[in-house]
Amino acid sequence: MRLLDEKSIENIALGAAVLGTGGGGDPYIGMLMARQAIRDYGPVELYELDELNDDDLIVPTAMMGAPTVMVEKMPNGDDIIHAFESVGRYIGKPIRATMSIEAGGLNSVVPIYVAARLRLPMVDCDGMGRAFPEIQMVTHTIYGIKATPMSLSDERGNTVLMETITNQWTETFARSITVNMGAMAMIALYAATVGQLKECAVRGTMTKAEEIGKTIRSARVSEQDPVKTVRESVGGFLIFKGKIGDVERRTEGGFARGEAHITGIDEYAGQELLLNFQNEHLAVRINGEFKVTVPDLITLLDVDTGEPITTEAMRYGYRVAVIAIPCADKWRTPEGLKLVGPRYFGYDVDYVPVEQRYG
Amino acid sequence: MRLLDEKSIENIALGAAVLGTGGGGDPYIGMLMARQAIRDYGPVELYELDELNDDDLIVPTAMMGAPTVMVEKMPNGDDIIHAFESVGRYIGKPIRATMSIEAGGLNSVVPIYVAARLRLPMVDCDGMGRAFPEIQMVTHTIYGIKATPMSLSDERGNTVLMETITNQWTETFARSITVNMGAMAMIALYAATVGQLKECAVRGTMTKAEEIGKTIRSARVSEQDPVKTVRESVGGFLIFKGKIGDVERRTEGGFARGEAHITGIDEYAGQELLLNFQNEHLAVRINGEFKVTVPDLITLLDVDTGEPITTEAMRYGYRVAVIAIPCADKWRTPEGLKLVGPRYFGYDVDYVPVEQRYG
Repeated sequence: MRLLDEKSIENIALGAAVLGTGGGGDPYIGMLMARQAIRDYGPVELYELDELNDDDLIVPTAMMGAPTVMVEKMPNGDDIIHAFESVGRYIGKPIRATMSIEAGGLNSVVPIYVAARLRLPMVDCDGMGRAFPEIQMVTHTIYGIKATPMSLSDERGNTVLMETITNQWTETFARSITVNMGAMAMIALYAATVGQLKECAVRGTMTKAEEIGKTIRSARVSEQDPVKTVRESVGGFLIFKGKIGDVERRTEGGFARGEAHITGIDEYAGQELLLNFQNEHLAVRINGEFKVTVPDLITLLDVDTGEPITTEAMRYGYRVAVIAIPCADKWRTPEGLKLVGPRYFGYDVDYVPVEQRYG
Repeated sequence: MRLLDEKSIENIALGAAVLGTGGGGDPYIGMLMARQAIRDYGPVELYELDELNDDDLIVPTAMMGAPTVMVEKMPNGDDIIHAFESVGRYIGKPIRATMSIEAGGLNSVVPIYVAARLRLPMVDCDGMGRAFPEIQMVTHTIYGIKATPMSLSDERGNTVLMETITNQWTETFARSITVNMGAMAMIALYAATVGQLKECAVRGTMTKAEEIGKTIRSARVSEQDPVKTVRESVGGFLIFKGKIGDVERRTEGGFARGEAHITGIDEYAGQELLLNFQNEHLAVRINGEFKVTVPDLITLLDVDTGEPITTEAMRYGYRVAVIAIPCADKWRTPEGLKLVGPRYFGYDVDYVPVEQRYG
């Protein structure tokens, strides 16, 4: 067990935005919320799975919706507490801790906020090792763990609790409710025991995010190439450098969908990169050829600072480095690829691990 | 208290379809379900409100969605039990009985099915004295009673429970979930005590429906004019006789919406009637002039048999009598008209009680 303080949170939010592959929520807003909660309620205990009992119950907390909306509409804090407590009441057993369901600027720190306010610990793992756009896209699903009971709450005081037969049905219902709630909802779901998490979760995600965050900060003040420093710290590959051109973006069906065109600079001059996203980055084509796809991570870094750029922050003229990072091994199984492989998202191409192409 | 047997159910389903003003679900399907339940589990006790204790808790049960869909997709029975029990578990107090939330071919008998299967009594009242298309359109809302906790269940085994800040929000969320569930869901909502129902409910709706049903049956076998007999039994006014022409119908947003054109026959020859509906009939214009609108009841009867014709059963060439029936007094208050008056549905016209025009 170790304590997360204000500094940890800033690093986690920043580093998780790298793992968030363009999604996972705005790091700035998440950081503000969690920092305030720690100021008000004190630091949060972060546990390894091995430090807890196998039958301890863990309920993850997160934001759901189009990150585009988050920029203009902040959660009020009570909403996520409502969602979390609603699941707890429904299960009727004490909840030992909360955790992050995905790595992302917001969704890595939402559980810190919940943990601080409710004086509960947090567990150092998540269900993706990155961010994905849909509810069923967690390693829990591979291991047969249900997303429900799931609760969604909004800032007005509405709460919806569901019990579904599959995690795909959870996604269907939850997406509609999220749209009704204004394209954003605060959620609690995927209750699981520590014993189950030892099998299904991606471990150490919070610590990994924190280390990446620290690296970005140190790169800022050093003379080093910040992109290179960040890339090395995540074990990723530089696949492109370019200037963002047209960005098409639409909020539809509760998602931020779109594509960005990036024109190569430096050693990539003359090449064109097409980036598709659905909240998170899904696929990269260079000169028309698929180079990186889900489930591997695609992250855009500011070439000057090494800071991650979320899909909603992409703007014409930004100079970016495109980094590809190998995904967690659980996603590379047949079951994993069925859930989050390129074909699920409509790309008629087989998944090729990024290190096979760039390693 | 009296017992509802198979015969009562047939009469209630038939009579409630008159009060259902074109909506409220298909009387045939509802009747089949409830009859089977009574065969399997025995007759159902029907209580007057005055026979119960003021703090007894009553939870209504119903079908929600586009009646068009009901014709092809039958509820499986377990779905409505799931919804009812989910609300009961959430409240955590014993439920004394169920009731009908609206008068309609299906929705008057769904609670009979629940009562029979769970060996619970039923109360002789409803929340409309007719059928309306949206969740918040019940007399409960006028008296500040909340629709939530509300549960929706589908035939696959999914259940969604919600707690909202207003009954309008309940409608918003529930409509989306209903669409996701296939434009139809089985629901339990508007939990209230007998004390509250004494103030807010429309009393005696089941008995009234049963009497109308009996009248239609007897009219069939007598030499009397069936339309006249039915009209008299409901205290209504004959406003038109005609042949159905074009019917435009679309299932959108979880509703069956549309309009029907009816060309006058007999003493109405030369006149044209336009009927608008959203699950239920909303307004009648004759030669372009509004003649009857919500909240008064508009019912189409087969001119030869006096049987009610639901919106989804309207077909080109049918010869129909159009009957208008005064609504329950609670709907004629300013609060009632705000909820279900013509302006709520987008008609720029004041409500004129039907008896002022035809009495």
